[in-house]
Amino acid sequence: MDLHILEHRLRVTSLSKAGLERYTHGLIKLVFLRDKSRCKFFSLTEMPDDYTLVLDEEGFKELPQTDYLQVAEATWLALNVVSNGHSSTCSQTIGVTKIAKSVIAPLAQHNVSVFMLSTYQTDFILVRESDLPAVIHTLSEEFSIYKEVNGESVPVDSNNVTNGFIKPKTAASPTVHPVLSPKNQFCVMSLDPDTLPTIATILMDVMFYSASLKARSADQDLGYIRFFSFSLIDGYISIVVDTQTQKRFPSNLLLTSASSELWRMVRIGGQPLGFDECGIVAQISEPLANADISAYYISTFNFDHALVPEEDIDSVITMLQKRQNGER
Amino acid sequence: MDLHILEHRLRVTSLSKAGLERYTHGLIKLVFLRDKSRCKFFSLTEMPDDYTLVLDEEGFKELPQTDYLQVAEATWLALNVVSNGHSSTCSQTIGVTKIAKSVIAPLAQHNVSVFMLSTYQTDFILVRESDLPAVIHTLSEEFSIYKEVNGESVPVDSNNVTNGFIKPKTAASPTVHPVLSPKNQFCVMSLDPDTLPTIATILMDVMFYSASLKARSADQDLGYIRFFSFSLIDGYISIVVDTQTQKRFPSNLLLTSASSELWRMVRIGGQPLGFDECGIVAQISEPLANADISAYYISTFNFDHALVPEEDIDSVITMLQKRQNGER
Repeated sequence: MDLHILEHRLRVTSLSKAGLERYTHGLIKLVFLRDKSRCKFFSLTEMPDDYTLVLDEEGFKELPQTDYLQVAEATWLALNVVSNGHSSTCSQTIGVTKIAKSVIAPLAQHNVSVFMLSTYQTDFILVRESDLPAVIHTLSEEFSIYKEVNGESVPVDSNNVTNGFIKPKTAASPTVHPVLSPKNQFCVMSLDPDTLPTIATILMDVMFYSASLKARSADQDLGYIRFFSFSLIDGYISIVVDTQTQKRFPSNLLLTSASSELWRMVRIGGQPLGFDECGIVAQISEPLANADISAYYISTFNFDHALVPEEDIDSVITMLQKRQNGER
Repeated sequence: MDLHILEHRLRVTSLSKAGLERYTHGLIKLVFLRDKSRCKFFSLTEMPDDYTLVLDEEGFKELPQTDYLQVAEATWLALNVVSNGHSSTCSQTIGVTKIAKSVIAPLAQHNVSVFMLSTYQTDFILVRESDLPAVIHTLSEEFSIYKEVNGESVPVDSNNVTNGFIKPKTAASPTVHPVLSPKNQFCVMSLDPDTLPTIATILMDVMFYSASLKARSADQDLGYIRFFSFSLIDGYISIVVDTQTQKRFPSNLLLTSASSELWRMVRIGGQPLGFDECGIVAQISEPLANADISAYYISTFNFDHALVPEEDIDSVITMLQKRQNGER
């Protein structure tokens, strides 16, 4: 298997909903007017209270710096696993499950904090730029590692970086975070970027004009969550939307995966998780890998979210709650 | 002929381009998400330095009040002339020319200041609400006057309002304002509101993302002007755009008038005109009426603009410059 370290230098930010109006101008430019900006990595995830925006430096420039925008310290890099054709041991699972044992678990053991972003097309593993030596050291046995430089893949010589690697190998036993499972059913979809203008008004409505506080608390009372994710990364669009919101889009334009599966969410974290704790993704993805259950995984500024096939949600919740109660 | 006093209670505002980002959120809602707002009268005219926004109270609510937004004092009402089928004396001209002698000249003589807004569909004559008694008194001989009340047309008894009428009849001799004529050719177009989403991204780009200072000064150096007008009034869309910008839209969606005429602009005013002076529209529209030349007329916060058929621009400019030199 190959591991690619992408060129994008990323910022992870949280935009409070109260500040949205100040940011609509820049966000619309980034989403709909691609030829006006040189941003190549843009991801917006709407949560009940805020939007998590992950974007490269060109995109970050479009956002005014105000108190409404919290920016996580550090520059983040995106890693991407590419199966190079002969990975016959690969299970049929998709998403974070596929990389749980080869990437997520080893990074957690080496105290590397990760921020996951699954999309329709692939799974991005974001790590702090300063953790890159530890990442390369940890993963070079399992993977051929390449760094994208000016669009070219350049092999990384792990011996060169090992010298810089000083992190302790034993991680503290991780906090077990509470999980909750909202009732929404989600779809993971894509869209030809050339047809994006066709759904622009609906998408703007969903992203920027449907998030009233009233709607939010009605959602919560009924056990639903407001969650919507849109990403436009290297020209590929990925949309995660619940079935209720999906109905607003013309059905002939959005591509769902062949199985057209529905997904249920496991939200991880009772309190905001922060960025320093390691092993959060691992504590969720390992049991999923053991049970061979696919999962998309979307980190946001405050919480993590796994999306698992609808038919597996009960067993996943049971499994994770057992862990919470100290059972193994 | 019938004169209708429409129900909309209007504000006339100027948004500085420096403040645009703060207003994109509200403006997009007003233009593209009709079911999110109860605004029924919305007009945006982009000028080199600012946007003139004319909108009803429901629309005005969507705009944050900041130093970037200047609001003209007073509430304005829109008048609309409806030829009721048997106006055989009507000339073939369109726009302000058609109402120059019946409406514009008498109002000027009675010191009523007007703000004109021609659209693809019709011509709105905006007057201050406080001037309504004078308007009714002045125009009741020529017109049957109706007031729209809850969507119904109610005849206005002009005798009732005459008592309140105290304005002097003789107006001061008007200042003759300089005119200039940019080189752009303009089209006046319409669009089925249901197809608006199809051109949303182009329209957003033109309205909110194409107004760089650099582009502006390049325009001016070459004798062109940045001017774009969009209105959505009672469900009808009207767009005034120069031929250069028109090319960005798919040609099959926009309706031009049957003649598909091109128009040239006469901009009136060297210094910002203000709202108190009367007779500015009259001093332009009367000679046009005498020469039987059609004209759309669009007032903005600072300047007035007449659009005349391309083939008439030279004679119009000559005619207006003669007036400026005191010749008649």
